[in-house]
Amino acid sequence: MLKAIFYHAGCPVCVDAEQVVLDYLDQTKLEIEIVHLGTERNRTEEAEQAGIQSVPALVLGGNVYHINFGASLEDVKNG
Amino acid sequence: MLKAIFYHAGCPVCVDAEQVVLDYLDQTKLEIEIVHLGTERNRTEEAEQAGIQSVPALVLGGNVYHINFGASLEDVKNG
Repeated sequence: MLKAIFYHAGCPVCVDAEQVVLDYLDQTKLEIEIVHLGTERNRTEEAEQAGIQSVPALVLGGNVYHINFGASLEDVKNG
Repeated sequence: MLKAIFYHAGCPVCVDAEQVVLDYLDQTKLEIEIVHLGTERNRTEEAEQAGIQSVPALVLGGNVYHINFGASLEDVKNG
């Protein structure tokens, strides 16, 4: 099954977007993984390599969808 | 059923995001409407009132989710 990875950092914008991802993405078509970059800091490099510039962001089928603008990845790395 | 409205303007970023909305949002939970502001210009005011600042954007449950950044609403209005 196609995997969708939602990266966030616990910011209010992130939490709001996470709810939509979990509630309304079709989990019969997608395997959804949630990554909290604030606590799983070892996954920051992977996020950068996927093309993520800010969180929250959804990686799906090789594309990155930045949703609104919560925090830049630089802030997350340095926070 | 909860209604999700996806506003776009035909830009490459929009088309890409539209595919995700159509393919992966759970249509058993959401009624999805697609609005092309380039051709349905009479809906621009409604989009502004919903809080949309750029397209593509998804309005869902009173919240606006701006996806990446294709074109500002000002550009769409003046384009």
